[in-house]
Amino acid sequence: MQKVDLKEKFTLFTEQWRPKIVGELNGQYVKIAKLQGEFVWHLHEDEDELFFVVHGQLTIKLKDRDIDLSEGQFFIVPRGVEHLPVAHSECHVMLFEPKTVRNTGNVQNERTVEHSERI
Amino acid sequence: MQKVDLKEKFTLFTEQWRPKIVGELNGQYVKIAKLQGEFVWHLHEDEDELFFVVHGQLTIKLKDRDIDLSEGQFFIVPRGVEHLPVAHSECHVMLFEPKTVRNTGNVQNERTVEHSERI
Repeated sequence: MQKVDLKEKFTLFTEQWRPKIVGELNGQYVKIAKLQGEFVWHLHEDEDELFFVVHGQLTIKLKDRDIDLSEGQFFIVPRGVEHLPVAHSECHVMLFEPKTVRNTGNVQNERTVEHSERI
Repeated sequence: MQKVDLKEKFTLFTEQWRPKIVGELNGQYVKIAKLQGEFVWHLHEDEDELFFVVHGQLTIKLKDRDIDLSEGQFFIVPRGVEHLPVAHSECHVMLFEPKTVRNTGNVQNERTVEHSERI
């Protein structure tokens, strides 16, 4: 039972696209990640996923439109919906999702992180 | 599937201690609330509850210590733990919790909100 300071947590790592666990509740994880560039199109069959922008800007591309997010905005990607996160400059996000989520969803490639680190 | 801008959502209401639903995922709600003054000691038997401070300062009193939160900090109150939120000035928070949570937990009084409004 410790409070979590997001800004402090973001100083603890530099890697991009590797979400870190910063909290756990009700079978869900709170994670944070640094994102830059383009990820990979994927979907999560059984999990909804929340992206909250803490710093910078993030575009979540969907098949039919783009969702442009700035600091203080969030978007929930419903289960089964293909999406592609894109950040032109480094963006800091907080994620809220079930513990079972794999970052690349139905895709497995070099960006897949099977077990997120807890910081 | 709409993005949510927290600052904009906070302009839509003025009442304090009446959480509003701004998102739903995986059986959980994302809520926001304006808090000022002292709430009521309570606990949630089966639900962990996350308090994220968006603006201002919040103290979550526990029976054995106080958790002081500023903007960008969060705290997860584990199920079964008695807590008392206190804010000297108006504080804006985002909450993550199961859909089943009642704001006053095991206590029912004039501050109980049985059904949160969706904004």
